[in-house]
Amino acid sequence: MQKSFEVFAIDRDSKARRGRLTTARGIIDTPAFMPVGTQGSVKGLSPRELRELDAQIVLGNTYHLFVRPGLDVIEYFGGLHRFMNWDGPILTDSGGYQIFSLAKLRKITEDGVEFQNHIDGARAFISPEIAMEIQAALGSDIAMALDECVPYPCEYDYAAQSAEMTTRWAKKCKGWKEENAERPTPINREQAPNAEHRTAEPINYQSSTMNSLLFGIVQGATFEDLRKQSAQAIVDLDFDGYAIGGVSVGEPEEEMMRAVESAEPFLPRDKPRYAMGLGTPPQLLEMIARGMDMFDCVLPTRLARNGTAFTARGTLNLKNAEFALDKRPIEENCTCDVCREFSRGYIRHLIKAEEILGLRLITLHNLHFYLNLMRQARSEIEGGTFDQFRRMFVAEYKPRDAMTVE
Amino acid sequence: MQKSFEVFAIDRDSKARRGRLTTARGIIDTPAFMPVGTQGSVKGLSPRELRELDAQIVLGNTYHLFVRPGLDVIEYFGGLHRFMNWDGPILTDSGGYQIFSLAKLRKITEDGVEFQNHIDGARAFISPEIAMEIQAALGSDIAMALDECVPYPCEYDYAAQSAEMTTRWAKKCKGWKEENAERPTPINREQAPNAEHRTAEPINYQSSTMNSLLFGIVQGATFEDLRKQSAQAIVDLDFDGYAIGGVSVGEPEEEMMRAVESAEPFLPRDKPRYAMGLGTPPQLLEMIARGMDMFDCVLPTRLARNGTAFTARGTLNLKNAEFALDKRPIEENCTCDVCREFSRGYIRHLIKAEEILGLRLITLHNLHFYLNLMRQARSEIEGGTFDQFRRMFVAEYKPRDAMTVE
Repeated sequence: MQKSFEVFAIDRDSKARRGRLTTARGIIDTPAFMPVGTQGSVKGLSPRELRELDAQIVLGNTYHLFVRPGLDVIEYFGGLHRFMNWDGPILTDSGGYQIFSLAKLRKITEDGVEFQNHIDGARAFISPEIAMEIQAALGSDIAMALDECVPYPCEYDYAAQSAEMTTRWAKKCKGWKEENAERPTPINREQAPNAEHRTAEPINYQSSTMNSLLFGIVQGATFEDLRKQSAQAIVDLDFDGYAIGGVSVGEPEEEMMRAVESAEPFLPRDKPRYAMGLGTPPQLLEMIARGMDMFDCVLPTRLARNGTAFTARGTLNLKNAEFALDKRPIEENCTCDVCREFSRGYIRHLIKAEEILGLRLITLHNLHFYLNLMRQARSEIEGGTFDQFRRMFVAEYKPRDAMTVE
Repeated sequence: MQKSFEVFAIDRDSKARRGRLTTARGIIDTPAFMPVGTQGSVKGLSPRELRELDAQIVLGNTYHLFVRPGLDVIEYFGGLHRFMNWDGPILTDSGGYQIFSLAKLRKITEDGVEFQNHIDGARAFISPEIAMEIQAALGSDIAMALDECVPYPCEYDYAAQSAEMTTRWAKKCKGWKEENAERPTPINREQAPNAEHRTAEPINYQSSTMNSLLFGIVQGATFEDLRKQSAQAIVDLDFDGYAIGGVSVGEPEEEMMRAVESAEPFLPRDKPRYAMGLGTPPQLLEMIARGMDMFDCVLPTRLARNGTAFTARGTLNLKNAEFALDKRPIEENCTCDVCREFSRGYIRHLIKAEEILGLRLITLHNLHFYLNLMRQARSEIEGGTFDQFRRMFVAEYKPRDAMTVE
C-alpha cells in the first residue's frame, strides 16, 4: 500500500508537524480539524457550505447512523458519502464512545459490547469485527478500531485491564481488515437524484476496504505508564494512524495534556496522530505543539446552537443584551461570509427570536474559526513561527465557562 | 410620481395578467409570490439563498418586528433591509392582522388598536398613522394601510361597520403619507460589517417615503355587497395598489373565491392586486385567473418544518416510512438545488432525526416550487395558454389535509 502520510515541516520549538494525509477521496492537510457530522449532517449545514468552508474531511458517528437510519438504509443508498452528498473524505468512529456515553444497559465482555440504543431501546451487539463491518458498509475513508473509553475518574486496575482489552480488540480489527482487503465498499458515483444538473466531475473511486485507512486508539486513562504501554502495544500492531482516546472526558486540562505527552513519544513520526473529541482553540494549539495532527470536536457546532461564537479573544454569548445594538460583525477582520454580511445585533435578534438562521450563521462562523485556526497553524509551522504564534494566541484568548464540552 | 405598474399581457380566457411592479429597490414580475420573512428572516434561509431562488421581494411582518427586536433596534441599524442584509424590495404588512390573531386584550376604537403583545405582554397602541410611521422606519418599499381583519364567520352588521372603519383608517394612512412625502427613510448603503469583502455594487437608493408605495386593503368579509362597497371606497382614495384582505381566514374555498370575485371588478386595471395570506398552489392559480397579481403565504415554509414538500401532484409528507428507501428527489425533473443533490430517503432521515438541514432542504424546494409556479404562470400568460395550464395543473394536483393553512 502506498504511503498515505507525509510530514514536510516540523516546528523548531515544539513537536508541531505540518503534514498531509492522502485518502481515496482526497487529501487532508494537517494539522486538520474535522467538523462532526453526527447523524449524516454537520448540524445546521449543507455539504455545499462545508465545501465553501474548505473542510477537507468530516466525521461520521457510527453509533448514531447504526441506530438511525440504520445500516440497511445507508447501504441501500450506496454508502454514507452518497447518502449525505459529501464526496470528500469521511472518518468514522467505531461507535464505542457513544455506546459508552449514550446507550443503556451496556454489557462489556471480551467479545464486544451489548447495549440498548437510546432512541428506541432496541438491543444490539458490537464486536471489533462488527465495528469494522459497519464502517466498511458506511464507506468510511478512515475507520477507527473499537476501543473502550473509560470515564474520568477511573481506578488504575480497571484502566489497565481495559487498555489491554482495547489492544486485543485493535488486533481483531486489524485482522478483520487484512482478511477483508478485497471486500468491495460502496462506490459513490452512481447517479445522484436529477444528476444531469450536477456540475462536479465524476471521480473513479477505488472500491475495496484496501483503500480505506485504519487507525488504532491509545487508551490508559490518566496513568502515565498505562498510556505508554497502550501506545507501544497499539503501535506494535502497525496501523495507518494513531488516535489518543479517553481524553477530554471530564479530567482537568493538565491531566489531558499529560495523557497525550505520555503516549506521544511512542508513536511513530511518519504516521498521523489524532487527539479525539477535543477541544477549545487554545487546547488545539497546545495539542499541535505536542505533536498531534488531527482533531474533531462538537464545540463549534454545539455552542453555536446556544448562541455562542468563537473569536480570537474568546467566546461571545450573542444572547447577551450588550449585543442588541452592536453593528460589528462577530469578529472584526474575519473573512467568513457571516462576518462580511451580518452584524452581532442581527444575529442576537435571530437567536432571541429562535430563528434557525441565527444558529446557522454562528455555526458557519465557528467552523470557519476552527478551520482557519488550523490553516494558520499550518502556515506558522511552515514559516517556523508556530510556537510563538501559539503563545500569543493562548495569551490573548480569554477562557470562559461556555468552553466546557457538555 | 412615475407609473409603478405596467400590465403587458392579459390572458384571453381568464382575468390573468402579466405585469411588472417597479419599486425603489427593484422590479417585481407579476404574478409574484412573496416569501414571508416574519421576524427579519425567511424561516431557515439566508438572504443569499433567497437571491439564488430568484425571489424578487420578501414580506416583513410589522407586528413581529415591532414587538421584537423593537423599532428602536431596527432604526439604529438603518432599517430592515440593512438589518437583515436583503437589498431587494420588502413589502411590510400594517401589523393589523397579527394584532387581531396573536396579541392579547385587544381594544379597537375609531382611533386604532390597543393591545398587549404575545411575547412579554407589554401594552402598545397602533393607529393608522403609527402603522405608517413604523413601516416608514422599517424602510418598507410597499407599505400596507392599517385595516381590521374580521374573523370567519362574521355578522353582517359588524362586517359592514368594520369595513367602513377600515376605509376611514385607509384615508388616514393616505393622509399621513401625503403629509410625510419628504420624510427621510433609512438609506441602506452604509457600510456592512467587514464590507470591504462585499462584491455587490452599491445602489443609490432614494431616501424619502415618496419613493415607497402604499396599498389599500379591501375588506367586507364574505358579503358580496360589502366587498363591492369596500373596493369602491378604497379605490376612491387612490392607492398604488389594492389588496384583498380578510380572505383565507377559515372560510370555505368557494367563499374565498367569491370574496375576490366580488371586489375585483371595482379595482382599476392599471394597479397591482394583492390577495393576502394565501394559499395552496391551485388556489394561487385560481386567484391569478381572477385577476390577482401578488401573493404571500407561510405554507411553503411552515409545512417544510413539518416535513411536508410540495410537488405538482400534491404534497408529500417526507416523515412517512414509505420514503425511507426512496432514492428519487422530492420531485423528478425539478431543477432546484435540493432535487439535484438529495434523495427523499436522506431528507426523511434528517427530518426523523430532527436535523435542521432537513427542514432547510424542504424549505428551499418548497419556495422554489412556489416561485417557479409563478414563473410558469407568467410565461403561460405571455404565451396565451394560462387558462389551459391552470386547468391541467388543478386537475393533476391532489389536495391533502396538510394543505390547510394552520
